[in-house]
Amino acid sequence: MDMKQILIVGGGIVGSVLSIFLARRGHKVIVYEKLRDPRESRKFSGRSINLTLCERGFAALDSIGIGEAIRDITVPAYGRVIHAVDGSLTYQPYGNNNEAIYSTSRGELNRALSNIARKDFGIEFNFNQKCIGLELSGPVVTFQDVQSGAVSNRSADIVFGADGAYSAVRLQLQKRDRFNYSQEYWHQGYKELLIPPDASGEWVFEKNALHIWPRSGYMLIGFPNNDGSFTCALHIPFEGDRSFESIRTETDLLRLFEDLFPDVTPYLPTLVEDYFANPANSMVTIRCSPWSFNGKIALIGDSAHAILPSYGQGANAGFEDCALLDSCLDCYHDDWTGAFLEYEKLRKPHTDALSRLCVEHFTEISDLVGDPDFLLRKQIERKVSQIFPDKYSLLYSMITFTTMPYGEAIERERQQQEIIDQIMRVEGIRDKLESREFKNQLFGLMEGR
Amino acid sequence: MDMKQILIVGGGIVGSVLSIFLARRGHKVIVYEKLRDPRESRKFSGRSINLTLCERGFAALDSIGIGEAIRDITVPAYGRVIHAVDGSLTYQPYGNNNEAIYSTSRGELNRALSNIARKDFGIEFNFNQKCIGLELSGPVVTFQDVQSGAVSNRSADIVFGADGAYSAVRLQLQKRDRFNYSQEYWHQGYKELLIPPDASGEWVFEKNALHIWPRSGYMLIGFPNNDGSFTCALHIPFEGDRSFESIRTETDLLRLFEDLFPDVTPYLPTLVEDYFANPANSMVTIRCSPWSFNGKIALIGDSAHAILPSYGQGANAGFEDCALLDSCLDCYHDDWTGAFLEYEKLRKPHTDALSRLCVEHFTEISDLVGDPDFLLRKQIERKVSQIFPDKYSLLYSMITFTTMPYGEAIERERQQQEIIDQIMRVEGIRDKLESREFKNQLFGLMEGR
Repeated sequence: MDMKQILIVGGGIVGSVLSIFLARRGHKVIVYEKLRDPRESRKFSGRSINLTLCERGFAALDSIGIGEAIRDITVPAYGRVIHAVDGSLTYQPYGNNNEAIYSTSRGELNRALSNIARKDFGIEFNFNQKCIGLELSGPVVTFQDVQSGAVSNRSADIVFGADGAYSAVRLQLQKRDRFNYSQEYWHQGYKELLIPPDASGEWVFEKNALHIWPRSGYMLIGFPNNDGSFTCALHIPFEGDRSFESIRTETDLLRLFEDLFPDVTPYLPTLVEDYFANPANSMVTIRCSPWSFNGKIALIGDSAHAILPSYGQGANAGFEDCALLDSCLDCYHDDWTGAFLEYEKLRKPHTDALSRLCVEHFTEISDLVGDPDFLLRKQIERKVSQIFPDKYSLLYSMITFTTMPYGEAIERERQQQEIIDQIMRVEGIRDKLESREFKNQLFGLMEGR
Repeated sequence: MDMKQILIVGGGIVGSVLSIFLARRGHKVIVYEKLRDPRESRKFSGRSINLTLCERGFAALDSIGIGEAIRDITVPAYGRVIHAVDGSLTYQPYGNNNEAIYSTSRGELNRALSNIARKDFGIEFNFNQKCIGLELSGPVVTFQDVQSGAVSNRSADIVFGADGAYSAVRLQLQKRDRFNYSQEYWHQGYKELLIPPDASGEWVFEKNALHIWPRSGYMLIGFPNNDGSFTCALHIPFEGDRSFESIRTETDLLRLFEDLFPDVTPYLPTLVEDYFANPANSMVTIRCSPWSFNGKIALIGDSAHAILPSYGQGANAGFEDCALLDSCLDCYHDDWTGAFLEYEKLRKPHTDALSRLCVEHFTEISDLVGDPDFLLRKQIERKVSQIFPDKYSLLYSMITFTTMPYGEAIERERQQQEIIDQIMRVEGIRDKLESREFKNQLFGLMEGR
């Protein structure tokens, strides 16, 4: 095999994992990251909201032998706790078989992954290096040191853009003829808030769960941390009545919380400080094509397909990209042009399908949770999936607890929804769910599937 | 009124027209253009394919008193001539009332418009000035002289991006948070070819028509020029069998023309030279939002909404933008922030609808022209529009010969298509079109509409 000099722009979670995959193939890998060394500060300087890892992400991490080390810094969540405005709680398990998703802060995960890449795989990381130019034919990447301002050029055999939704590498590709591209922002944003541990250092709510306060168009979501705290994201519109724009004073803010989140306000001692200190973050869906250029430049992770966080798939999809690319390099015997084309051909239909799903699901989460028909559908789905575990899989479970390609899971769900449509048309279904009659009908419907 | 210093990036056809609208309002307008002064060369240095002006474009030009001067440099086309592969011709009038569209080369139109702007309205034009940066808060635009390389900064009260599909101004806005943007390329491209006048200096085909050689997925289209020539555009795929990629030799090219365009080949004496000298141009659909920033920066024409050329609306839509913006400034008494927001709110739904229509229609032109059902539909549409001119307007006529907002024309067409659907379901309709029975059915259908 031909050893390549590979330059990865972006030393975040996907760039770090990619660097390990490529170093294991025997290449010389150097990572350049715009932000400072994550070891230098406990407080992460990028987007700091928590993320969740699931089966797909761990499958990729396990394949390079680092899954266990990463599992150690996460908190498993076996279900979500829905907090009603009156303070009453409903628990919904994520899976039917006690499966969990794993919560961690992006900062902590990033630190762990780049440490492993450096210490265990000897990969060179350069921090404070902002990509400001890319000569495609070289390829040569131009970096500016964000501290000294010094500009330098680095050439390589292969350049990866693992530099996220606002990828500088992709911006250079975008200027080329016939590069299809779209960036579409969600109308809501989020702000980070903190629920600290109680006086004895313990979690004030169930530790092994995500916590959701859904309020029809407004939402608070809490992720457990290892230290007894929850990192929360307040999702509200950017503009309009009760929005980031209209909430200007402490009184405006407290009025919003009194109305919508009175049950959680006592657990947010630094609500006012956090709200006015933290930025309102936007969320964007990115689609583009082609993902590579001449076998020399390729995009991976969010830079190729940033998605809304509604399914908690961002990190998982990025890690899966790395594993898929690795197997394409196997199949193409390290012919980079062929492997890059195959990687996009195999992968893009699935990330496109996922990206549409995430937009639809975000609407569902924030708008439909109070709709009785929607809740009935969800109840029926769960029931059918429990009675026929081999024939009916919940979409959430397929996305989260399997490595079935995204597009296949979504197509299977489309077929399953036809069954639920039929069941919803059964006269008086709402009162029949536990009856023997309904069960018999169900066996009829599912026969032959 | 508050006189403003206005800087227009882009001195093409829309930038020139915009400069006149704004100068008439009493503002100090300066235009910066990347290309060289169009007076310096007869051969236009940008994209040189012909374009057509229609009612909408002239309505805007007439409102600033320059319609007649522009009509003088165009050639009216009252219909299209369809050239079959065996050389047989079919004439289709564009309108039912002898209306015409007006063909001109982009270069000649550009020269005429910028001359009028300079001579009659005293507007300053600076050529060879490439926009390489924009400080939004100033606003301050950075230009580089493409000949000397000298860089200069120009500040203004208002900056317009009238710099086309590949707008440098829009690129700066795109980097801002929450700017929605997409660029989507058509899978085909086009190359310019020339049909010169005959020995006596006359047009070799009907002068007052556009000429189309539709070949299911391949197409040649010819626009009449004032000098006896036709400028042609050869539309073929970029990749695949018989594409820009696969045609590499004179033999490849001549084989394509022997197969698909044998009837026109004798009229293309410089086919081989033209084909291998001219670039394969791509076509892109651009959508974005917002079109303005803080009442200081705004996009107009292709930079806000580049469309495919299938309806010949690019220039017309751009000129209509200028007229609409002008009336928004009237309504808002020159409050630029309000006028810019209103301009986008009124206009974007219509350019979005138009942009979708152009994509659909391109498929129609190149793929469906040989489909008997499609041709029958077109025949029925024309018949219904002739019998009921007040109740049924052909979409092409509404787009081309009226100033009805695009979205309204498209919505009206949607309703009309329901009538055609009903007629298409009439048993044996193909043979009944001229019968009294059909006419009676038609009167029944149209009653009450």
